Amino acid sequence: MTDRELHLGVNVLSDGMHPAAWQHPDADPNWFTDPAYWIELARIAERGTLDALFLADSPSLFQPPDAPLTAPPLALDPIVLLSTLASATTHLGLIGTVSTSFEEPYNLARRFATLDHLSRGRVAWNVVTSSDPYAWNNFGRGGGVSGQPDRRDRYRQAAEFIDVVRALWDSWDDDAVLADKAAGAFSRVGAIRTIDHRGEFYSVDGPLTLPRSPQGHPVLFQAGGSAGGLDLAAKYADGVFAAQASLPDALRNADDLRSRTAAYGRPRDAVRIMPGLSFVLGSTEEEARRRNDELNALAGERRLAHFASQLSVDPSELSWDKPLPRYLLDGAVTDTGSQGARDIVVNLARRENLTVRQLLDRVITWHRLVIGGPEQIADAIEEWFVAGAVDGFNLMPDVFPSGLELFVDHVVPILRDRGLFRREYRHTTLRGHLGLSRVPDRRGNVIGVAAVG
Amino acid sequence: MTDRELHLGVNVLSDGMHPAAWQHPDADPNWFTDPAYWIELARIAERGTLDALFLADSPSLFQPPDAPLTAPPLALDPIVLLSTLASATTHLGLIGTVSTSFEEPYNLARRFATLDHLSRGRVAWNVVTSSDPYAWNNFGRGGGVSGQPDRRDRYRQAAEFIDVVRALWDSWDDDAVLADKAAGAFSRVGAIRTIDHRGEFYSVDGPLTLPRSPQGHPVLFQAGGSAGGLDLAAKYADGVFAAQASLPDALRNADDLRSRTAAYGRPRDAVRIMPGLSFVLGSTEEEARRRNDELNALAGERRLAHFASQLSVDPSELSWDKPLPRYLLDGAVTDTGSQGARDIVVNLARRENLTVRQLLDRVITWHRLVIGGPEQIADAIEEWFVAGAVDGFNLMPDVFPSGLELFVDHVVPILRDRGLFRREYRHTTLRGHLGLSRVPDRRGNVIGVAAVG
Repeated sequence: MTDRELHLGVNVLSDGMHPAAWQHPDADPNWFTDPAYWIELARIAERGTLDALFLADSPSLFQPPDAPLTAPPLALDPIVLLSTLASATTHLGLIGTVSTSFEEPYNLARRFATLDHLSRGRVAWNVVTSSDPYAWNNFGRGGGVSGQPDRRDRYRQAAEFIDVVRALWDSWDDDAVLADKAAGAFSRVGAIRTIDHRGEFYSVDGPLTLPRSPQGHPVLFQAGGSAGGLDLAAKYADGVFAAQASLPDALRNADDLRSRTAAYGRPRDAVRIMPGLSFVLGSTEEEARRRNDELNALAGERRLAHFASQLSVDPSELSWDKPLPRYLLDGAVTDTGSQGARDIVVNLARRENLTVRQLLDRVITWHRLVIGGPEQIADAIEEWFVAGAVDGFNLMPDVFPSGLELFVDHVVPILRDRGLFRREYRHTTLRGHLGLSRVPDRRGNVIGVAAVG
Repeated sequence: MTDRELHLGVNVLSDGMHPAAWQHPDADPNWFTDPAYWIELARIAERGTLDALFLADSPSLFQPPDAPLTAPPLALDPIVLLSTLASATTHLGLIGTVSTSFEEPYNLARRFATLDHLSRGRVAWNVVTSSDPYAWNNFGRGGGVSGQPDRRDRYRQAAEFIDVVRALWDSWDDDAVLADKAAGAFSRVGAIRTIDHRGEFYSVDGPLTLPRSPQGHPVLFQAGGSAGGLDLAAKYADGVFAAQASLPDALRNADDLRSRTAAYGRPRDAVRIMPGLSFVLGSTEEEARRRNDELNALAGERRLAHFASQLSVDPSELSWDKPLPRYLLDGAVTDTGSQGARDIVVNLARRENLTVRQLLDRVITWHRLVIGGPEQIADAIEEWFVAGAVDGFNLMPDVFPSGLELFVDHVVPILRDRGLFRREYRHTTLRGHLGLSRVPDRRGNVIGVAAVG
């Protein structure tokens, strides 16, 4: 266990994970479009030697479009924002979510390669396929709104999309730029090649417009715990960000993912498992509870409504001091919509016989929630890490920037003192932070495969 | 004339306008993917109080894909790069080219709005429709490569694309963010609305994910001088970047554009006309000629091959010391492909009876070329500006960064001393630099129209 390294990212959801984050006295609700705010967050994360800053995304307001907003949305385009954050930091990894459903693979491959150059090797693409119906309604063709394809089709398209993107990232050899001024020869003959992809969904000639990037390939993350998502992660991903609410489920899930990964001929531990970890942190547990009570009071009944909408039930079906409705607790585990994540929450409620109020002290959205002092948060991280359920966490503080600042100033030092977390960056690329090698170019891959075979 | 303002942008084509730019002793051919290089260029432009830095683009290598490169390509994605440049500058306008043919309007609207927030109001979208066949081959659908639609269809699609983008930019009212912490109300009821666009090409619900940006709408540029392009510019654009090789043609073109603009009910001078101006600059004309000879020697016969491919003729049809082939000089003016730009060059050759060698001292690609000392470059700018043919130029130096640095240090002071160009920025937004107002929100537009009617 001693050579395993703990990995920590921070998932910046505009104002924070708590539905009342923007109402907290520490928050300024107008910051969500201000570059200075985002740069400050990135610099706090870098001061804490975190592996990466993670940007979730969906190209919609993620709610019925004419309803007023109850919190700041995921407003800024993540790719554009990451470029600004790259120029304001030197070591922090930068992970951006982009759906395979609303982009062209050529554009996406080029944008992440560009970001990898501009950040000098610090970016990752978090692949999602988007089940958000409001997003689909923003990308219809003429003559009417296109329907959303079913999950299986979306994942088949995502797999082809990733294949195209990776082929484009390899369309230049590492030494393609010759730059022979005297001869007037800029690139090496034969070192930049078309990919000539002809598939079910895409037809792409290539090559890309730019040299291979510092990491060879930008890192690939995958988010979402459905069977299709896990399979995509096992085949392609360097890291997963999936919701986990309890240690038994997290252990089972990690084992499942590792077996699937091995089945693709990859090392069992090839994928960094980093589920979300939300927290409300105080200098003591009591202070944390007070901060949590204060936030809950600000959110009021919105918490219940929010939870009901996640569970796809009517708010009237939930009562604070009762268990979840019987039919949910008895429901069969299925794999449609966000069912994978929903099952995780329902499993926890059933296993520990929790009321709604108790459950909402343990999970937020689909993610594990811990309320406590610095030692308790550090314990919560160490427990799952040592158990082998995770390689780290994608942190989801209650309120930005104060929640992140508290973590960096009070929890990170404890993790360092316990020998769990780096005291300083030892690498300059995100692959380096994650203990992953640079991806070799086509010739390197050919040699690698030959050596293994 | 005294209240007209001269506007100057710089069009950064990786290494410079001259085909041998990267071979020049001042150039480092490995800079084209290095953020430090691009940031340095932006800061030189800002030191010269230029209106904007302009990034051309096509999502391809713009040449037969398996042929080796003879110069650095337009490698980096312009939108991603502009975000880095926004964070490294404070006043410089930032113009990025994106084709309407390979993007979704929702994504484009969101990215430019994001850039406008991150730059605090300094971005422009340069609209193109892409005739580059290699680009089209990177965006085929499954089952085979999609053919390129004809120019008229491309422009009809572009117009609808722009309509969707502008509607999305107006999907939030200016005061939509309420941020009432006590009431828990983040947005004003009814201030964020769907656009419900149902058109020939697109079906987009909206709203956008983010508040209206500092400029209201990012500035719109249009590049290209075909009739379709001019019409698009007249209807929508705040600025045009079209090739012009001679003053008579530039005057005729400006008059045409202004008439078309007026026909759309806009002020005749609503569009800033900024054609390309390439230059080779020395401290004297003699030094400039030496620099030019040196570059031409490095490029050798590539210059002729390059020019032949632009004209869509075989290199064997061109001789350095003869006029253009008769059939070109006699050819009818048409409007397909890049014919608009080609006619401009052929017109100049015919009017002044130039050999190929003489012609290539006057134009580069399709653009006006001036070789001389600082006073001569300043004269060239002043002549066309005072004649009313242009509102300024999009500068295309021979070699980066030295060509731009020479211009900022030696030509800008002359233009300032002549009272033609600003000594310091008087505005913080690109609209401000260009003498354009912020675009009011939907309610503002309604009030504006009512007041006029």
